[in-house]
Amino acid sequence: MELLEQRIIADGQVRPGDVLKVDSFLNHQLDVDFISRLGEEFYRLYQDCGVNKILTLESNGISIACLTAQHFHCPVLFAKKKVKSIVTSDKLWKSTVHSFTHNTDHDVVVSKKYLNEQDRVLIIDDCLANGSAMSALLDVCHQAGAHVVGVGVAIEKAYQDGGKSIRRRGIRVEALARIASMNVEDGVKFC
Amino acid sequence: MELLEQRIIADGQVRPGDVLKVDSFLNHQLDVDFISRLGEEFYRLYQDCGVNKILTLESNGISIACLTAQHFHCPVLFAKKKVKSIVTSDKLWKSTVHSFTHNTDHDVVVSKKYLNEQDRVLIIDDCLANGSAMSALLDVCHQAGAHVVGVGVAIEKAYQDGGKSIRRRGIRVEALARIASMNVEDGVKFC
Repeated sequence: MELLEQRIIADGQVRPGDVLKVDSFLNHQLDVDFISRLGEEFYRLYQDCGVNKILTLESNGISIACLTAQHFHCPVLFAKKKVKSIVTSDKLWKSTVHSFTHNTDHDVVVSKKYLNEQDRVLIIDDCLANGSAMSALLDVCHQAGAHVVGVGVAIEKAYQDGGKSIRRRGIRVEALARIASMNVEDGVKFC
Repeated sequence: MELLEQRIIADGQVRPGDVLKVDSFLNHQLDVDFISRLGEEFYRLYQDCGVNKILTLESNGISIACLTAQHFHCPVLFAKKKVKSIVTSDKLWKSTVHSFTHNTDHDVVVSKKYLNEQDRVLIIDDCLANGSAMSALLDVCHQAGAHVVGVGVAIEKAYQDGGKSIRRRGIRVEALARIASMNVEDGVKFC
């Protein structure tokens, strides 16, 4: 999607450690009108798939999931990163994400009340790299017996394995900008 | 706002420990079309105030902030709950939130790049109770020299001190549903 590629070139910053900062418009400060256009594109791609729920992971996926769900007129469900047992007495679907950036593991949970075998789920997130977060969301859907219609991410680091391994499982993955390579000197090259 | 009060009565659940669960539509599963109508109401209330930025706190505030910002056509900035110094080399405004629910303290941070004395800020969140999170967001705005136009929350527990103490500081607070009292036996009573 040229609109997103142009925005990444204009406002993204490549930092050492394979970090692409897009926090001026996508995951800290949020350009809501712009993100809604990404949501429109996900709708164009998945409109005929009977999507009745959009699943994402807090926090960075929430804005793009909501601004996509508006086009589908379906609810969003966001997985939470840990259980605060003091509040939650509900039954939960649970999986684990390993963060390579922060070198930590954390659980992600979804209430069983809101995800089940009736659901046709579109999973939305801002970025897909090694696929650890996405695998946890797919695992949660699998546990719930929900049908995953596909995955939609704004940015895929196509030189990492996440997208490849999900596609290899026969799951449709749509990325609005696919990065072939990036480094501090040369910036970002798209596929 | 009657629409929200009715929804709380229909779908909210009062749990022991002063917990109002609204996670079927407001802060886990998200009824996006419904939340957009709350955003429309915040726009009606604050449309003449020159708002150029909406500030919220991850994760529960993000959906309502985004679906409000759409009506203002301004960006959202969401404060993050902790610094991962491995990624962040940016200068940050920082404050501390005490969570009475979980009995923990955590920092909230906002990049200095995205909040400054040019900004006229509307602070949006899902719930206001003791006001600890809101005080941290106000503190962050104060540090940045940003002008706080007002605060908008979906639900205020009016029997707690948060809203009262913020209004006492001369800051406008708009709550779409104000709870006078609640308990497991009798449910929710509005102001």
